[in-house]
Amino acid sequence: MKISKFFFVSQKSIKEEYQSKFLERLLRGGFIQQESTGIYTWLPLGLKVLKKTENIISEELNKIGDIQVQLPFLQSADLWKQSKRYESYGKEMLRVSDRHDRELIIPPTCEEQMCSLFFSKQVSYRDMNKVLYQIHWKFRDELRPRNGLMRGREFLMQDAYSFFTNEEAAKQNYLDHYNAYLSIFKKLNLDKLHVITASSGEIGGDLSHEFVIESEEGDSNAFVKNVSIDYVKNLQELKNISGDFEKQIENTTEKRVVEIAHIFYYGTVYSEKMSYEFINKEGKKNKFYGGCFGIGVSRLVAILSTKKYWPISVAPFSIHLLSINEKYQNICDKIYEKLIKFYDVIVDDRSNLSYGEKMQEADLIGAPYRIIIGEFMELYREGNLINKFSSIEDIYDILNKEI
Amino acid sequence: MKISKFFFVSQKSIKEEYQSKFLERLLRGGFIQQESTGIYTWLPLGLKVLKKTENIISEELNKIGDIQVQLPFLQSADLWKQSKRYESYGKEMLRVSDRHDRELIIPPTCEEQMCSLFFSKQVSYRDMNKVLYQIHWKFRDELRPRNGLMRGREFLMQDAYSFFTNEEAAKQNYLDHYNAYLSIFKKLNLDKLHVITASSGEIGGDLSHEFVIESEEGDSNAFVKNVSIDYVKNLQELKNISGDFEKQIENTTEKRVVEIAHIFYYGTVYSEKMSYEFINKEGKKNKFYGGCFGIGVSRLVAILSTKKYWPISVAPFSIHLLSINEKYQNICDKIYEKLIKFYDVIVDDRSNLSYGEKMQEADLIGAPYRIIIGEFMELYREGNLINKFSSIEDIYDILNKEI
Repeated sequence: MKISKFFFVSQKSIKEEYQSKFLERLLRGGFIQQESTGIYTWLPLGLKVLKKTENIISEELNKIGDIQVQLPFLQSADLWKQSKRYESYGKEMLRVSDRHDRELIIPPTCEEQMCSLFFSKQVSYRDMNKVLYQIHWKFRDELRPRNGLMRGREFLMQDAYSFFTNEEAAKQNYLDHYNAYLSIFKKLNLDKLHVITASSGEIGGDLSHEFVIESEEGDSNAFVKNVSIDYVKNLQELKNISGDFEKQIENTTEKRVVEIAHIFYYGTVYSEKMSYEFINKEGKKNKFYGGCFGIGVSRLVAILSTKKYWPISVAPFSIHLLSINEKYQNICDKIYEKLIKFYDVIVDDRSNLSYGEKMQEADLIGAPYRIIIGEFMELYREGNLINKFSSIEDIYDILNKEI
Repeated sequence: MKISKFFFVSQKSIKEEYQSKFLERLLRGGFIQQESTGIYTWLPLGLKVLKKTENIISEELNKIGDIQVQLPFLQSADLWKQSKRYESYGKEMLRVSDRHDRELIIPPTCEEQMCSLFFSKQVSYRDMNKVLYQIHWKFRDELRPRNGLMRGREFLMQDAYSFFTNEEAAKQNYLDHYNAYLSIFKKLNLDKLHVITASSGEIGGDLSHEFVIESEEGDSNAFVKNVSIDYVKNLQELKNISGDFEKQIENTTEKRVVEIAHIFYYGTVYSEKMSYEFINKEGKKNKFYGGCFGIGVSRLVAILSTKKYWPISVAPFSIHLLSINEKYQNICDKIYEKLIKFYDVIVDDRSNLSYGEKMQEADLIGAPYRIIIGEFMELYREGNLINKFSSIEDIYDILNKEI
């Protein structure tokens, strides 16, 4: 991509009200733009990061057999009335009347709809032991939206819902989701990641964990274990690495954290609440065992934006190419034509900006690799000089190994 | 994908009210499910088709330099009040009040928002000559939603908006979009495709064309030229192949049609209406010249669903694999393990369905290639036997050439 052809809207400074660690870089670098309170437009840079993040999540969930669907953004209020959450959910759920005065809602969560979908026809034991998920926009009318995408009103969420014939299989699937989520976060290079035993809250059930990231600007406190978390084989192993929100347990330290994902096992709660059952081998009705598993996708983008360089897995561009002055622009453009065939590269081809200005904007974009064309060609990885080269072929060799 | 692990909800019959050519197959085959009037859930099969369609559109638009962004689903009503469309748009636009009684709208079209985004900072001539687009969900509260996705309320739309310094460049870009759209529709194997001169309607401007498909269940009439349409180099060539909605012109026949895409050139209308201008080389303010270009993405899925087999470019699966009876299931499963490494293949691994039932469901899914394992292995392309084989290696050779 040539910057001159791109829609890149950087900002030199931002208003004081936006000065949150999670918002500043996204606004200054032109990744998102505020449309109204807690509602954002995704600019080309931000949309690229968001889509790559979404793809990583899909890939890992598909690997463990989850099946993707998409519920509508606007849904009938009927099911929410049936589950009695229509009244209890309060003002965070947006309610709309259509032209025929039928009540629609914009769902902040989708247990009702997903159960209704799964049980829309008679379900036999053969149809069970599946997990449906979606990655779709949701809306929560937060009283005080803050920190940009961290607590926005319109947000992208991955939510998965499981439907199992028995407790053991459902709990094994709970562990599969823990492990898949960990794979996702490893691909995103997230550090200061912890897992915390959580209360199941209003959803109910007896097993629940949150993935959290340590952050001084976090909105809750947790006692985190001083271990780096890893894949688990059983619930005991998961218990060994989990911290707690309320209780100070052994080898934990209290930290300010932000939540990035939440997994619940709710057993037969939704089966009972909504009267959904499957037909077993003997032709009798049985309750199903389920859980739900969610990641705040747009929130992840906010967290990743706090690092100077994006991880290569979601970077809007892998390589940022620029020249130190006009004299080298021609060779820079030629190198671009070669690189673009193999890499997601952006070249700064503007003649009205100084080298210093271009470097500042390259910092805002945050591509993990940078190539600077001058007397020598310099290749940087995350701000560190890998080497100086006199031939571009040598750079190709290194890039081939690295990317 | 193994059908036993997939979420496949076919229906033997559907209610009379859903018996539309554009809806029946999607419901019976389990591609979509109605959530409420004009609002649909995308089941795994439908979502796969939709995403592939979306990707084809993105690819072609990126080729002509369009830049993807994403506006929020819910937007502040302020801009619509400024353009005076808040009152004039009527009941098709859904209006919502948030918890602080601020007015939000769910936009049925995005001229206001996209102009506001493009001109959110001072724009110089260097920033001009760009096209922003999005592929996102929209909502129109139709008085009488009908024909499923054809005239639904929640729908996926691609909408592009151009910003040019002069008329000539803006009109050339209009032709680029005509040609890009034609490339998209060729990739989708759409037939009975025509281009029609259209009135610019409430948007204003002096140049507008619609892409339409002949269909007895269409919702308007048009006089279509008896030529197959092709790429154009200038407006005269476009005129030569265009029909008309109202006027019977030479070599045209009146047909019932459905609209699938609409391109507008509106000149300086939005520049004047919303007072958006750019700074030219002399430092003076100038009006911009623009157009907008839209495709009904979910509507395309409805049109494609009327064919027995999906085009390979958007088929939910390329190959459908099944055995004539249990005796051959083992070899069928082994072939699946080999094919899945290279192709998007679905295998019917269910033991509780007869061969006839499996074939009926394969018809509903509509993969363009089918392999039936029995004494011989039969390979079909769109229902036609290519050949019988005794070794699977021979089938691989053919598939390699075909897909």
